[in-house]
Amino acid sequence: MIKIVVDLLGADKPQTELVLGAIRAISENKDLYVYLMGRKTELEDFLANVTYDESQLEIVDCTQEITNYDDPVDAYHDKTDSSLIKGLKMCRMNEDIGGFVTCGATGVVLISSILILGKLNATRPALSVVLNGRNDKPFCIVDCGANIDCKADRFVDFARLGVAYMKTLGIENPTVATLSNGIEAGKGSDVIKEAHELLEKCGFNFTGNIEGKEVLDGNADVVVCDGFAGNVLLKSIEGTAKVVFDDIRRAAAGASDTQKAQLEAFIGRLEPKFDYNNEGGAILLGVKKPVVKGHGAATDKTVYNTVKIAYGLAKNNLVEKISEEFEKK
Amino acid sequence: MIKIVVDLLGADKPQTELVLGAIRAISENKDLYVYLMGRKTELEDFLANVTYDESQLEIVDCTQEITNYDDPVDAYHDKTDSSLIKGLKMCRMNEDIGGFVTCGATGVVLISSILILGKLNATRPALSVVLNGRNDKPFCIVDCGANIDCKADRFVDFARLGVAYMKTLGIENPTVATLSNGIEAGKGSDVIKEAHELLEKCGFNFTGNIEGKEVLDGNADVVVCDGFAGNVLLKSIEGTAKVVFDDIRRAAAGASDTQKAQLEAFIGRLEPKFDYNNEGGAILLGVKKPVVKGHGAATDKTVYNTVKIAYGLAKNNLVEKISEEFEKK
Repeated sequence: MIKIVVDLLGADKPQTELVLGAIRAISENKDLYVYLMGRKTELEDFLANVTYDESQLEIVDCTQEITNYDDPVDAYHDKTDSSLIKGLKMCRMNEDIGGFVTCGATGVVLISSILILGKLNATRPALSVVLNGRNDKPFCIVDCGANIDCKADRFVDFARLGVAYMKTLGIENPTVATLSNGIEAGKGSDVIKEAHELLEKCGFNFTGNIEGKEVLDGNADVVVCDGFAGNVLLKSIEGTAKVVFDDIRRAAAGASDTQKAQLEAFIGRLEPKFDYNNEGGAILLGVKKPVVKGHGAATDKTVYNTVKIAYGLAKNNLVEKISEEFEKK
Repeated sequence: MIKIVVDLLGADKPQTELVLGAIRAISENKDLYVYLMGRKTELEDFLANVTYDESQLEIVDCTQEITNYDDPVDAYHDKTDSSLIKGLKMCRMNEDIGGFVTCGATGVVLISSILILGKLNATRPALSVVLNGRNDKPFCIVDCGANIDCKADRFVDFARLGVAYMKTLGIENPTVATLSNGIEAGKGSDVIKEAHELLEKCGFNFTGNIEGKEVLDGNADVVVCDGFAGNVLLKSIEGTAKVVFDDIRRAAAGASDTQKAQLEAFIGRLEPKFDYNNEGGAILLGVKKPVVKGHGAATDKTVYNTVKIAYGLAKNNLVEKISEEFEKK
């Protein structure tokens, strides 16, 4: 049984909507068990009308909730009966729990995960997102926003974390590239140039620099960058795709209903691929259990996807794979 | 008459193809005069079969050509009869010449423009690109790759350059925003946080931080960033749009010819908007004449567009507008 703790509070949508994502995930995966962190009575009443296998879940009552307005350190100390803090502590205390899923406040998730679960291999954890590029080839970006000003040696840790992550997806010898403003080795900020030199020496399948325009082509399995550049990259991919799809629909505004339906048949299925926020979540790499963070506006679909990601990471031994990468140091 | 010098050598395509872009530009603008820098005899022979108004152009013979393999400083000293160096010198020597257009090697263009035309207001020049966002609202990104590691005060100069640029497009009080990893004032690298504070004090129409996903929404007229982040942003917009359009066409691969034609009617017209490289060029802001740089794979359409940009910048007094912004200092 793969056991995942699912935090159902602290997002924009009510727990009774989000829980349906977890229910769908257990229905599809018979070896998945979820601890649902939320308001127990309300959840029990709601689930009385839902069909699911009771042997696959347990509701854990939480009397507190963390919001975006909470100070991360205060929340960690004062809201010990919140779904987020209580859930992370359950992950820490129970060896057989494989991971944690939340759509709560990012700052609190980052700090509490580090304080409660602890760092792996003494590296600072990083946020990563897996996107599907051209031909649906997956690749990951590390870091996506947890570490803003970074020295060059941090990029080596990002590469180790990303390589381990891609190995859980079955990619045996993931390629690693540094995000830069040109593909030539001499291109980049001073930090990137130094990181480039370090990465060449560390035994990675390192392919050099990658530009923003090639990232989605899937030219590298692991794109390493500081959290500032990674965030700009990720959000500009998301924003551009959204504007392109919106523009296409506007271009077709005067078309017939049949033509519009035809267009939707072409583009509707593609759109979610670029919407990493609704489709999945960011993974906090480098803590002692996988933590998957969906965005605050999560729907039941987001929860379904994030639970599936955490399930996959636990099943495919992310934490062991990260440790293996760091042992190569 | 607006006089523009057009460098026809140093790009991938032959001068006899690129010149057609300049011919189209003078045909459409009767107050535009171009100096065509290239191999004169070949151009004369080619233009003998083309219809245009001879009073709107002059061919200037150049015996040398600069390539991507040339060292920028060597090229500046040794290739004085190249279309690029000779053209820039013509711009410097003749007060009535309004700007320079080239598709030559970026490094040589940057360094030669600074060495020959000189800096405006003692600031380091920056590369900028204007994109059309949602609803075709234009906005500019400064810097796009000329200045990689920047201190905070450079962002103020980028803002002045960008504001002047947007004023040439008729935007009276352009909004300015700092590209960051979150919209809150405290978000960003140390440099961005400092730049944010400086920009708040300098009398700009400053709207704070902007994220990569909002840039194309046109939430700011001028997006300021270092050349590293700007390059990542610009290229990820370009790359994402390309992948989205390719994916849509692949999704429709099995459709009927009629359906495909219909789809092209919707998306074909939109595609160029995101292809800033073919549609226009980068503008070097902060030298004493406008310099517009098309990419090496330029077509006659690129030349047409870059000549039109240079014409607009000269006509709308970019250089004076930049000086005005710096006088506010």
